[in-house]
Amino acid sequence: MILIGERINAGFKDIKAAIQEKDPTAVVKWAVAQTEAGADYLDVNIGAASRDPADMAWLVNVVQEAVPTKIAVDSTKVEAVEAGLEALDDRGRLINSTTADPDKLAKLIPLAIKHGASLLGLAMDDRGSPQNVERRVENAAMVFMAAVEAGLDPDRLFLDPILMPIKFMQEQAPNVLEAIEQFTHLSDPSPHISVGLSNIGNKVPERGRVIRTFLIMAMARGLDAAICDVMDPETIAAVATAELILNQEIYSDSYVRAFEARRGL
Amino acid sequence: MILIGERINAGFKDIKAAIQEKDPTAVVKWAVAQTEAGADYLDVNIGAASRDPADMAWLVNVVQEAVPTKIAVDSTKVEAVEAGLEALDDRGRLINSTTADPDKLAKLIPLAIKHGASLLGLAMDDRGSPQNVERRVENAAMVFMAAVEAGLDPDRLFLDPILMPIKFMQEQAPNVLEAIEQFTHLSDPSPHISVGLSNIGNKVPERGRVIRTFLIMAMARGLDAAICDVMDPETIAAVATAELILNQEIYSDSYVRAFEARRGL
Repeated sequence: MILIGERINAGFKDIKAAIQEKDPTAVVKWAVAQTEAGADYLDVNIGAASRDPADMAWLVNVVQEAVPTKIAVDSTKVEAVEAGLEALDDRGRLINSTTADPDKLAKLIPLAIKHGASLLGLAMDDRGSPQNVERRVENAAMVFMAAVEAGLDPDRLFLDPILMPIKFMQEQAPNVLEAIEQFTHLSDPSPHISVGLSNIGNKVPERGRVIRTFLIMAMARGLDAAICDVMDPETIAAVATAELILNQEIYSDSYVRAFEARRGL
Repeated sequence: MILIGERINAGFKDIKAAIQEKDPTAVVKWAVAQTEAGADYLDVNIGAASRDPADMAWLVNVVQEAVPTKIAVDSTKVEAVEAGLEALDDRGRLINSTTADPDKLAKLIPLAIKHGASLLGLAMDDRGSPQNVERRVENAAMVFMAAVEAGLDPDRLFLDPILMPIKFMQEQAPNVLEAIEQFTHLSDPSPHISVGLSNIGNKVPERGRVIRTFLIMAMARGLDAAICDVMDPETIAAVATAELILNQEIYSDSYVRAFEARRGL
């Protein structure tokens, strides 16, 4: 699994304040903590805290000075994505995200190629969030074809089937599982498939249980990446156990500890 | 999910002693406890404690006098299965199990039809346990076709892909997941698909975690029955959460408690 740490996001109050006050303390704290927890990427998002692309460059710089971890530059605004990419040193990077909207694809695919970045494509278009499997597959295929035709290797593409809160859109959860499996058939080897994992647990009292159970079920259908709370040891143990069952990691009696050690915990 | 309580089995010392001493105490205790925990069936197995089919009839009688729960008559010996079925009142019943061996099928399918029983078919033959997906599907298809040709409805058929200990045969775990999915394509609606869940955790220190994670992954691929430890509240919560995500049970904030209540906890 490719684990993308979700915590450096202006949706969290401490990160919002850090951006507005240009105080790196909280950002550095979460960059180090998520890296030590085994994150493969750190998602970096200025959200609604700022409309200034320079703030994305500042945030990326704070993170890359603190840790060597790969960075996912996360914004709906192309200018902010570009500013983040231009601030980056030569580490691995991921653009989070494009949609299947042709205008966005026309801007973000060349940007990914220019900057040697991987690209995360949401299976949605300008009509909004998909409500069935077919729309998800249609949108994902559109992103896939545009990216591959432009020369992006499927291994640099992450497709996201759009996970929704189970409390409000329960019928979408099995649709996402089915879409994940269908995405795996787009190419061999498959593109990466990722979800924004925390979404499903929105306003759910049994939040952790729902999130982890979905993660395990999605891994059984082909999910190989997630933007998630990498600091939760139960999530890490769930990933270690699912990888064991998928025979992706070799069994040992202390396999959870071995998994943590490989990831630097 | 159809949950089959595994505990009334002479592989456990207290049940073995109960059979040998004809002392119903432990049997009644587990029959009541598993029923209260929400078991759909109670598996009843005299194992190596006895070679006498009359002992199966005794064990079935003790259970059915204690609780109204459906019974899975579990033996590799046709005579013991027959003795158990003949002892049963008119409740639901399951034969556990046949293999794809033509001699066994020729005896157990007519027995299932005669006694109005469901039939669990192991995806193995006289060559032993299957080591790949193809052998599992081949054996399951053989059981399926023989049963359906003889007039058994697919809804009365349970197919078991043969789950093995992950500690010793790790590479079989993904094969079982893939076989489960292929079994779902045998008919529409699919036959039931069941595993002996505890097997995977044999000699594993993180036994509970491995068992529950496999259960969740298997449910994501189409498993709808398991012979398992129904007394484990974490297993029950895992099943409730996976059914929620599959949209088989309606969301409520107290969905685990609601699931338990429906099952009589």
